[in-house]
Amino acid sequence: MAKTMQAIVKAHAAPGIEIREVPVPEIGATDVLVRVEAASVCGTDLHIYNWDPWAQNRIKPPLIPGHEFCGIVERVGEDVTAVAPGDFVSAEMHVACGKCLQCRTGQAHICQKVKIIGVDADGAFAEFVKIPESNIWKLDPSLPRAWGSLLDPLGNAVHTVLAGEIATKTVAITGCGPIGLFAIAVAKLCGAAMVFAVEVNPYRRSLATKMGADVVLDPTTEDATARILAATDGVGVDVLLEMSGHQNGINTGLKALRTGGRASLLGIPSRPVTLDLAEDIIFKGAVVQGINGRKMYETWFQMEALLKSGKLDLDPVISHTMPLRDFDKAMDLLKSGEASKIVLTKF
Amino acid sequence: MAKTMQAIVKAHAAPGIEIREVPVPEIGATDVLVRVEAASVCGTDLHIYNWDPWAQNRIKPPLIPGHEFCGIVERVGEDVTAVAPGDFVSAEMHVACGKCLQCRTGQAHICQKVKIIGVDADGAFAEFVKIPESNIWKLDPSLPRAWGSLLDPLGNAVHTVLAGEIATKTVAITGCGPIGLFAIAVAKLCGAAMVFAVEVNPYRRSLATKMGADVVLDPTTEDATARILAATDGVGVDVLLEMSGHQNGINTGLKALRTGGRASLLGIPSRPVTLDLAEDIIFKGAVVQGINGRKMYETWFQMEALLKSGKLDLDPVISHTMPLRDFDKAMDLLKSGEASKIVLTKF
Amino acid sequence: MAKTMQAIVKAHAAPGIEIREVPVPEIGATDVLVRVEAASVCGTDLHIYNWDPWAQNRIKPPLIPGHEFCGIVERVGEDVTAVAPGDFVSAEMHVACGKCLQCRTGQAHICQKVKIIGVDADGAFAEFVKIPESNIWKLDPSLPRAWGSLLDPLGNAVHTVLAGEIATKTVAITGCGPIGLFAIAVAKLCGAAMVFAVEVNPYRRSLATKMGADVVLDPTTEDATARILAATDGVGVDVLLEMSGHQNGINTGLKALRTGGRASLLGIPSRPVTLDLAEDIIFKGAVVQGINGRKMYETWFQMEALLKSGKLDLDPVISHTMPLRDFDKAMDLLKSGEASKIVLTKF
Amino acid sequence: MAKTMQAIVKAHAAPGIEIREVPVPEIGATDVLVRVEAASVCGTDLHIYNWDPWAQNRIKPPLIPGHEFCGIVERVGEDVTAVAPGDFVSAEMHVACGKCLQCRTGQAHICQKVKIIGVDADGAFAEFVKIPESNIWKLDPSLPRAWGSLLDPLGNAVHTVLAGEIATKTVAITGCGPIGLFAIAVAKLCGAAMVFAVEVNPYRRSLATKMGADVVLDPTTEDATARILAATDGVGVDVLLEMSGHQNGINTGLKALRTGGRASLLGIPSRPVTLDLAEDIIFKGAVVQGINGRKMYETWFQMEALLKSGKLDLDPVISHTMPLRDFDKAMDLLKSGEASKIVLTKF
Repeated sequence: MAKTMQAIVKAHAAPGIEIREVPVPEIGATDVLVRVEAASVCGTDLHIYNWDPWAQNRIKPPLIPGHEFCGIVERVGEDVTAVAPGDFVSAEMHVACGKCLQCRTGQAHICQKVKIIGVDADGAFAEFVKIPESNIWKLDPSLPRAWGSLLDPLGNAVHTVLAGEIATKTVAITGCGPIGLFAIAVAKLCGAAMVFAVEVNPYRRSLATKMGADVVLDPTTEDATARILAATDGVGVDVLLEMSGHQNGINTGLKALRTGGRASLLGIPSRPVTLDLAEDIIFKGAVVQGINGRKMYETWFQMEALLKSGKLDLDPVISHTMPLRDFDKAMDLLKSGEASKIVLTKF
Repeated sequence: MAKTMQAIVKAHAAPGIEIREVPVPEIGATDVLVRVEAASVCGTDLHIYNWDPWAQNRIKPPLIPGHEFCGIVERVGEDVTAVAPGDFVSAEMHVACGKCLQCRTGQAHICQKVKIIGVDADGAFAEFVKIPESNIWKLDPSLPRAWGSLLDPLGNAVHTVLAGEIATKTVAITGCGPIGLFAIAVAKLCGAAMVFAVEVNPYRRSLATKMGADVVLDPTTEDATARILAATDGVGVDVLLEMSGHQNGINTGLKALRTGGRASLLGIPSRPVTLDLAEDIIFKGAVVQGINGRKMYETWFQMEALLKSGKLDLDPVISHTMPLRDFDKAMDLLKSGEASKIVLTKF
Repeated sequence: MAKTMQAIVKAHAAPGIEIREVPVPEIGATDVLVRVEAASVCGTDLHIYNWDPWAQNRIKPPLIPGHEFCGIVERVGEDVTAVAPGDFVSAEMHVACGKCLQCRTGQAHICQKVKIIGVDADGAFAEFVKIPESNIWKLDPSLPRAWGSLLDPLGNAVHTVLAGEIATKTVAITGCGPIGLFAIAVAKLCGAAMVFAVEVNPYRRSLATKMGADVVLDPTTEDATARILAATDGVGVDVLLEMSGHQNGINTGLKALRTGGRASLLGIPSRPVTLDLAEDIIFKGAVVQGINGRKMYETWFQMEALLKSGKLDLDPVISHTMPLRDFDKAMDLLKSGEASKIVLTKF
Repeated sequence: MAKTMQAIVKAHAAPGIEIREVPVPEIGATDVLVRVEAASVCGTDLHIYNWDPWAQNRIKPPLIPGHEFCGIVERVGEDVTAVAPGDFVSAEMHVACGKCLQCRTGQAHICQKVKIIGVDADGAFAEFVKIPESNIWKLDPSLPRAWGSLLDPLGNAVHTVLAGEIATKTVAITGCGPIGLFAIAVAKLCGAAMVFAVEVNPYRRSLATKMGADVVLDPTTEDATARILAATDGVGVDVLLEMSGHQNGINTGLKALRTGGRASLLGIPSRPVTLDLAEDIIFKGAVVQGINGRKMYETWFQMEALLKSGKLDLDPVISHTMPLRDFDKAMDLLKSGEASKIVLTKF
């Protein structure tokens, strides 16, 4: 096979990316080389592109970004048994150390020394990507390619929704980016009684309706907390899934949470958050969970089952599809706020 | 109002029942008198009718049986605030003592001194029934009367299904009497990935299909365990809901349960059961739960949400509807094995 | 018996209290009248005494405060069966409504309509106090009277410690008021591997040592977080029990909590708290629990067992004992910061 | 170093063992070679020695048995980073496949394809044993050698005790072999309120007392269930730890378990067991857990903490210490019933 490949490369410590011809990754005995079929864009990729403070602190150029993808196994290391060339796969891109307390007690998703492929090592915005066998996830060949590239954010949603009881519960989801949108559908599919979606962006609100939210609220024009309380006889929702990472979204959600409810926080605030801890958590006897990544690999088994059911439609969340060579255009779209999930196909 | 009413009465320590004119129950300050609109027949009622050894040991004639019902509040005691005359209601018929360890630690459904209305006190096969306010459950007036009489067995099913994780899980249900049938629909509605129903009776198997089972198995003509293992890549199901109370059903289910799975047992064996404890529970690291009644009142809130969703159809389980005066006929039908749930309406 | 009694009375909407002769409470059919043997002072009582904004908002004078006590049953209503005159008792002073969602699903400790005896109704700083039978807790007659008055705050500690796994875990307790001090002893008794106590007040630090803390830290002179991290190989503690209600205590504790750890928050901040939610909770995959009151009545059963073991010594936490008539003096001592728990005996 | 070593070898498909000179194991890149310092004898070793039906079915001679041990790292493979030569270590001898559902969802201790070193591969009754790095557990060098060899059965006990709530709970332990004995001490250390030990063998009963059981019962001369019920006000124990694997022990324990209690079953019955499933599990709302091995590696972290506390004394359980060359004598002792744990030291 060819020795080189095209890739999106963060070449320098500065904004932007380059399309470069680079060597195809060499694989070790327990690695898998995957030919990328589709890769989707995450907010993290925009941070890297923009070279914002987070990126400056974390990324060591040159780097190939991209951590949401699917593809076909091209080659496997000599010790690999889980997959074979030709298999359709995706992968968990958080590579856990396997030796820390968390890894050894079933919490590898919060490994103290995690490395993320596409952030800390070369990722999937390229013709090929190298993945350790432990992290490969075999997919049903009939799964649409675009969907196969969405398992990372879908997994975030599944992890958040299923982090506690959901069947028969009332649920508020604050923030309807792709993960929030997926969470709506997953919650309904798992028996949630009523899902309230709270989102400032009208385009995203329209998607929230498509994904099955029972009530969609615009907190810029209505008192979302009051609406939720009124619709729950003043009790509040059983479950809050916080996907916005914004002070306002967090406040709205916590105020709408019932006494004794569960708040699962996935949205990452970019600055400190001020909370009415006494009223909103302590007196309320609330349980607040920090949610990070996907459980390795419970979440993947759960996703597999949900996709297999045929009842989960990911299409509404995909706003654009374009080849990898249009990466700059994808970044522009994302900045505009008019895109939801952008799927990138072969160069 | 009238001082007397018609009732089905177990008058003597012998098989059969009588229809009698008896006094309308007098209520205390915290009681509710309900005019019965519909009452369904449970296997327990047949035991009482037949006067089998269990009944001989437990029942003290004269007794009005009947513990599955709904009706309209006729009158309330002076301290009652939860409901008012005219409200449409059902009730939890297990009356907990409120003072034992279990009652004081959130396990009132397994109260050490429970009294069951319709078993230990006069029940609902009558024009009126007396219920303590604590046990009354207000219903949506739009709920079909027949469905309102089914909340006791539906609650058994909900309690069993939701006693552990169910979303994305594979499930075997052994025994498809009314509770098993309800469990099929509830499991699917709460996101179960695949439901295998195992049942010897062809009529019940046909209902299992109607309630949404993915695979319906006849253990008299096929190796149900082998079929389930084959359909789960040899792994077995994540969850067993045992509803048969039979040695064979229990064995089939436990052998089909995956290592690390959950077995929730509701079916009541009438005699001791022999288990391969080493292989089927211990080495397997299985969790086996005894399930009794309905959680007071989590299960009722869960049922309310499921019914409100509009996605739960109870009609297939109702095989017959007839007036209370045809009680003997209902008993005959039940004995025949050709009935599922029989709903009794006003005399 | 006498028709009147002496009592500490918050007579007016202003600072201070009065000692007054007031009627002995009349009891209903399900009430218990208790002759108070000992009553301890809580921070809440100081708020009421000082008539601070919280008190101005919540308290409706005239009111007899006092919600930590024990005594001898004097008289019981006609329907009471749980206790009889002469029994030694304490009581859960949170009176739950019994009808809200929380009360009906095993969370009565966070009842939406809770009334607190001693806050919303006349309490125990008097010769007699009226308690509903449901809330009475019978004590072993051999329990020291002073200890019997401490079950409310001891229960707060037990509820917090046992709100998750504690055996073999490393624990940080931030804030060593009486509840924090009790928590130290309870955690050790339940198998905590190592307890770090963090407290600014030197007197309280000395008590923390007496209660069994393995390491006692002064955050005003040392970096408590750094000390805890160093002592746990950089991992952090498994469990944080936050008892200070202060921004600094909360920060210190959360920064010292390990990835995937549990933070149980009991201390009530008097103003909003600013958190690094991203780093300290979300990426960390932490579970944060709001803790309120005592579980009704799991916590009481747990306390009973701990006291019966003979291994729990409450004496170090009692700094002063004085008669109820010295109430003003008790308030002065509490303000000085040189008191821990003050037990008040008969007038 | 030497190319050969002495070892206890099950050389033929027949009763008995041989002491042989065999090659020192060769290690791969991720293996660790350990010089055995102490190894203890398990009932499994006696099965292998006696060549009973279980052994005939499972063991493929020639095999070096022995799965409870500690030693000093002699050499490590090139990729090993967790330990270095000279480290004092023990090991989890269940080698999980890492690829099955259970392994990938935090249940590696019930891996579908587990291999046990000392059963399915050469074990520790030799001068050296080969262990994969993933399974090595580093020990504090100050830990007594004899204790270091007991972590496998101690871990069984810790896994069983901590499989649910234990602090403040009443506990019945049926069967006081070494694991039952360890469980007594662990339960007390973790705050169990009262431990009832039930055991037919007088020697073991004397050890149960030494390990801290509050009440030791001989079911051959007294009604152990009745005694436990009487001591718990007729309620029964909160927790049953079943360590006997005998029909009688299981019955005694389940009948003594309170409604809503937990039964954790570790003892392996050698034949089917007959249960009163209706009364003892279903109506009781009991939770029955099959317990297998040790959680990988939660249990090991828990053991480490317990040993570090200095409050756990393993010595009473060690009845004999002798060199490996006296293996036949150890087998004779074990058969006599007069031995508890036998620790074997270097040849």
